[in-house]
Amino acid sequence: MKVSTLSLRISVILVFFLCFISSPNLSFAQQTHRFQPTKYYFTYDGKHEPVLKLEPGDILITTTVDAFGNKVSRQDQRASELVHLPEVNHQTGPFYVEGAEPGDTLVLQLLNVRPNRDYAVSTHLPHFGVLTGETYTAMLTEPLPERTYVWKLDLTRNLATLDLPESKLGKAEIPLHPFLGTVGVAPAFGEAVLSLTPAEHGGNMDCVETKAGTTVYLPVFVEGGLFMFGDVHAAQGDGEICGVGLETTADVTIKVDVIKGKKINWPRLEDETYIMVAGSTRPLIDAFRIAHTEMVRWLAADYGFDKWEAFQVLSQVGTARVGNVVDPRYTVVAKFPKKYLG
Amino acid sequence: MKVSTLSLRISVILVFFLCFISSPNLSFAQQTHRFQPTKYYFTYDGKHEPVLKLEPGDILITTTVDAFGNKVSRQDQRASELVHLPEVNHQTGPFYVEGAEPGDTLVLQLLNVRPNRDYAVSTHLPHFGVLTGETYTAMLTEPLPERTYVWKLDLTRNLATLDLPESKLGKAEIPLHPFLGTVGVAPAFGEAVLSLTPAEHGGNMDCVETKAGTTVYLPVFVEGGLFMFGDVHAAQGDGEICGVGLETTADVTIKVDVIKGKKINWPRLEDETYIMVAGSTRPLIDAFRIAHTEMVRWLAADYGFDKWEAFQVLSQVGTARVGNVVDPRYTVVAKFPKKYLG
Amino acid sequence: MKVSTLSLRISVILVFFLCFISSPNLSFAQQTHRFQPTKYYFTYDGKHEPVLKLEPGDILITTTVDAFGNKVSRQDQRASELVHLPEVNHQTGPFYVEGAEPGDTLVLQLLNVRPNRDYAVSTHLPHFGVLTGETYTAMLTEPLPERTYVWKLDLTRNLATLDLPESKLGKAEIPLHPFLGTVGVAPAFGEAVLSLTPAEHGGNMDCVETKAGTTVYLPVFVEGGLFMFGDVHAAQGDGEICGVGLETTADVTIKVDVIKGKKINWPRLEDETYIMVAGSTRPLIDAFRIAHTEMVRWLAADYGFDKWEAFQVLSQVGTARVGNVVDPRYTVVAKFPKKYLG
Amino acid sequence: MKVSTLSLRISVILVFFLCFISSPNLSFAQQTHRFQPTKYYFTYDGKHEPVLKLEPGDILITTTVDAFGNKVSRQDQRASELVHLPEVNHQTGPFYVEGAEPGDTLVLQLLNVRPNRDYAVSTHLPHFGVLTGETYTAMLTEPLPERTYVWKLDLTRNLATLDLPESKLGKAEIPLHPFLGTVGVAPAFGEAVLSLTPAEHGGNMDCVETKAGTTVYLPVFVEGGLFMFGDVHAAQGDGEICGVGLETTADVTIKVDVIKGKKINWPRLEDETYIMVAGSTRPLIDAFRIAHTEMVRWLAADYGFDKWEAFQVLSQVGTARVGNVVDPRYTVVAKFPKKYLG
Repeated sequence: MKVSTLSLRISVILVFFLCFISSPNLSFAQQTHRFQPTKYYFTYDGKHEPVLKLEPGDILITTTVDAFGNKVSRQDQRASELVHLPEVNHQTGPFYVEGAEPGDTLVLQLLNVRPNRDYAVSTHLPHFGVLTGETYTAMLTEPLPERTYVWKLDLTRNLATLDLPESKLGKAEIPLHPFLGTVGVAPAFGEAVLSLTPAEHGGNMDCVETKAGTTVYLPVFVEGGLFMFGDVHAAQGDGEICGVGLETTADVTIKVDVIKGKKINWPRLEDETYIMVAGSTRPLIDAFRIAHTEMVRWLAADYGFDKWEAFQVLSQVGTARVGNVVDPRYTVVAKFPKKYLG
Repeated sequence: MKVSTLSLRISVILVFFLCFISSPNLSFAQQTHRFQPTKYYFTYDGKHEPVLKLEPGDILITTTVDAFGNKVSRQDQRASELVHLPEVNHQTGPFYVEGAEPGDTLVLQLLNVRPNRDYAVSTHLPHFGVLTGETYTAMLTEPLPERTYVWKLDLTRNLATLDLPESKLGKAEIPLHPFLGTVGVAPAFGEAVLSLTPAEHGGNMDCVETKAGTTVYLPVFVEGGLFMFGDVHAAQGDGEICGVGLETTADVTIKVDVIKGKKINWPRLEDETYIMVAGSTRPLIDAFRIAHTEMVRWLAADYGFDKWEAFQVLSQVGTARVGNVVDPRYTVVAKFPKKYLG
Repeated sequence: MKVSTLSLRISVILVFFLCFISSPNLSFAQQTHRFQPTKYYFTYDGKHEPVLKLEPGDILITTTVDAFGNKVSRQDQRASELVHLPEVNHQTGPFYVEGAEPGDTLVLQLLNVRPNRDYAVSTHLPHFGVLTGETYTAMLTEPLPERTYVWKLDLTRNLATLDLPESKLGKAEIPLHPFLGTVGVAPAFGEAVLSLTPAEHGGNMDCVETKAGTTVYLPVFVEGGLFMFGDVHAAQGDGEICGVGLETTADVTIKVDVIKGKKINWPRLEDETYIMVAGSTRPLIDAFRIAHTEMVRWLAADYGFDKWEAFQVLSQVGTARVGNVVDPRYTVVAKFPKKYLG
Repeated sequence: MKVSTLSLRISVILVFFLCFISSPNLSFAQQTHRFQPTKYYFTYDGKHEPVLKLEPGDILITTTVDAFGNKVSRQDQRASELVHLPEVNHQTGPFYVEGAEPGDTLVLQLLNVRPNRDYAVSTHLPHFGVLTGETYTAMLTEPLPERTYVWKLDLTRNLATLDLPESKLGKAEIPLHPFLGTVGVAPAFGEAVLSLTPAEHGGNMDCVETKAGTTVYLPVFVEGGLFMFGDVHAAQGDGEICGVGLETTADVTIKVDVIKGKKINWPRLEDETYIMVAGSTRPLIDAFRIAHTEMVRWLAADYGFDKWEAFQVLSQVGTARVGNVVDPRYTVVAKFPKKYLG
């Protein structure tokens, strides 16, 4: 009896031990890292030195500055004078994840994305945005009038308020739904991509879904993945049509993981309700096509769907969310409700 | 006293009378018309003879056939063999509204859009849809395999069910959200537009918002407006990516009105929660631009917004819904929450 | 001898007779019609009454007015005040061709397209053209400044001259290369299309290749074809970027024919050097795709090419010409040199 | 007399001397560099070490390998198996030009671009090209069949010949018009761009105009400019529709210069007949817009044109050439005839 009790105990310990070492998501020493950024990057680039190395399973607690580097805070300031390319959309990072190799998938569980100051800034910039001639949709038209709008943030009540002196209403009061405007990894093939531009590596998708509660899956293109993020918006409409959301500083908490040997082509997202794919390119219809072909392939590869049945069901239950239509590439998110995944 | 009582009564009567005659929305003889269509149109065209004349304030109760003219009901049938252009997307109408003149706005209050049979059909058609080469995005590629999917409709439980024999799940069961895939008026400038194509006159927007509870505002381009509708979908995902929703027959009830002297450029929608604009063209980004410029102008013209403040607030609270990305023109709906209208 | 001479004569006559009746291009009574238009159409529409009936082989000599209906002739006039939709791009016709039926190809041999007055007009119109926000690429920008430019035409020297008072050069003197900006047939499926819009039926392609010496092949969609034309440009750059060429009146001579049972999908052109296909839609890349897929199919169907070898050779020797990028649909012409046809 | 002769001589010498030192294009020590590349780059990147430093006025004589790194030479080989991203479109360089600083313009006079072997290769690659679903215009369609076509080059007769065993013609024989498919500088803002992608820095424009006799002007974004080139095509049709021209190795001779303080936004070209601007982006219409807005600005800034008169004249005499419609960004070249520059 004693012997068998002992052997039972040993077995239990062994089973636990085996579980631990075989689990890619756990380690004996899961760590929480508090990181205070001192410099920011403006390109996603595999050649940047990582600012910190993390193990899969680690938690990162850090902060982001706003897309203007906190330089614009008053209505009488002009972003076009204070902020110059490439020094916009400051990224915190890059962070190196041990064991992440090209062909793997990096997992970023967004635990917290929370504004940490009492205002946010939006602007109408000359020759920027979707309803004006801009760098690529080049026109001979004059720019729209430049404006700076400073929204008050009430973090307790979760509200943003803007005075509208020229309008009958007097003011707008809207709920916050903060998210990372930009999150991504170092790009493939030795490319370096401006922090203004979304693509296969993620980047400036300006997609309202990269919020606390969402898990972001990114393709790993270089050793360590080298993820970065920033550009928190306290709120933003679909498409970010004027080109600028409610830009603010934020506290960000992310749990990091790696799925070994899992290759994805474009960023994927998951929250309680949806699985999602973010496609980024111009023109808009092609961003839409990327997101939806990838979703069909995902449903077929991972959820037991026949390809054409996946296409049929997605055609009937899918929703699409327009991320940005103002950056050098646009973003569309295809969403499939998890309740139809069985 | 008596005199004053009498004069009071007379005053009250007079006030009511004046209200009645001054109200554009009421008439002494509001009628409910039950109309059974016997033929269907495949173009929106000011030259079509109206099938019925309505007064502003009248209610129309009628039916629609499905987009294939009810010709496809079994999985082994091929729509490509049974249905041929232009005889798809059968429209009920056109209905003439007394007093509607070019430069007015036609108001269609959708009171009921309800499937009335126990199945709906969707198909994958050769060279149709957004993820394949098609008429305008012409490719040298082979077509996708043709498929016919027959969904069972349970109108009591408001559910559609599809067997998925090739997939692990076995079947999909989804809620119905029926809507008019197509609704519009005769186009401007003597044009006649296929019932497959959305544009300024409305038409085949395939937009999930044209459902019971929504009011549709359409620009009047010809005497009487000559509105038509059809192509009811029991359900559909954003973009209708395979090109075909859950096509079914339906009962439709619409209350008709006219806003005299109110000129709009593109269809507008309103439900309990949103005001909306539907822009339709290719490429997709231009449908998006149309919907959002019109929304800015609408906010400025009718809701007391300064133009640039409207642009700023829409940039932060607007949502966008992709109607179709498969028809000869695509549709995007810009949505502004009514709670921010004051 | 006599008998045999007689029989020879009879034989010769018989052979000629058989040639005549078997030739689709000849008739005993080839006629030349001189037609003076008294009204003009603004839509391509199968419901229009033809102004004249022609036999295959007939020659039509007629005239066109300019795209503004000859209403703008002075620099101080504003087209935006004098000309209103749909009354622009006045079309001469429609002409009915005996024997032309849906599924046939109409052949228009352009024998003469010659300006017949001493000036041409171009304008910069508010919200029109490719380098400004316009109806479909809708923007919140202000329009470009309106301008009217009156070019002097020297028909003897084949030159157009414009004073450039604001520029160092003082004036521009350019050669004429007159062509039909618009030429087409009644559209398919009962549609009616504005004379501003090119599509499968031809229409406002604004393509410099529809000049004297070119043969235009158009798909026949209705009995008689019902072809029309107009909008002669004395000269125009690729894309017609400001939206308006050197608009002028012209003498036009066209020889008409029909190819029975030959079905084409899009307009085809042929001159001494090239066979060409004109694809018209938005976005521009899709007009490009249409023109080039049709060209591959044409090479394979009519010129003995294997499909993939046609694709390869077209990839190396094809040239592409941008017709218009300002109309509701854009036009691209794919060109294949006839010297590689064997 | 003697004195005056002497002073004349001195004057002449002085004038020559002043000419020399005042000429930005000449130096006392103009050098010709013969450079044999030993490695190739696949990104345009300011971080790459230059392989050679040149002075303004120097001449560079070097060679390029073909876009497949010379790995494909037989019809039975499959590029999809032999060549893998990023190792395509091998670039010779980068070359550092002394004195070239951000804000300057680099001048590359293409003196010689000459194939130097007796064959060229073209292929139809799976999911590549404009008439098939590809990475960004993503589709669910199957790829086109892969093909390898080996063209014989006769450099004496300046002809390329391809056997067409499947076609009636038997073979195609076409003249060579060799050009640099790719030429550019290191990009702005720390970006690194794949050698497959054209943009502001030039790169893979696949534009038939970058041939011997053309001068290429490129914006300098980093110290020394760091120009590279490669991807010589012996011939190519507009748009390079299958995605691959007549890929071959070549001898290249370039004269280098710098225009100090001259800032341009996009590549400019000049040959005997035209000044040109190359705009590169997706969608195609925006590449067209970039090229034409830049051309209007160039005409106004450097050639004494009023902006609106430049717009008018360009609208009437400009031609447009489609470079590539297959790379991650497309290219359009706007051309203005030099004879209208005064």
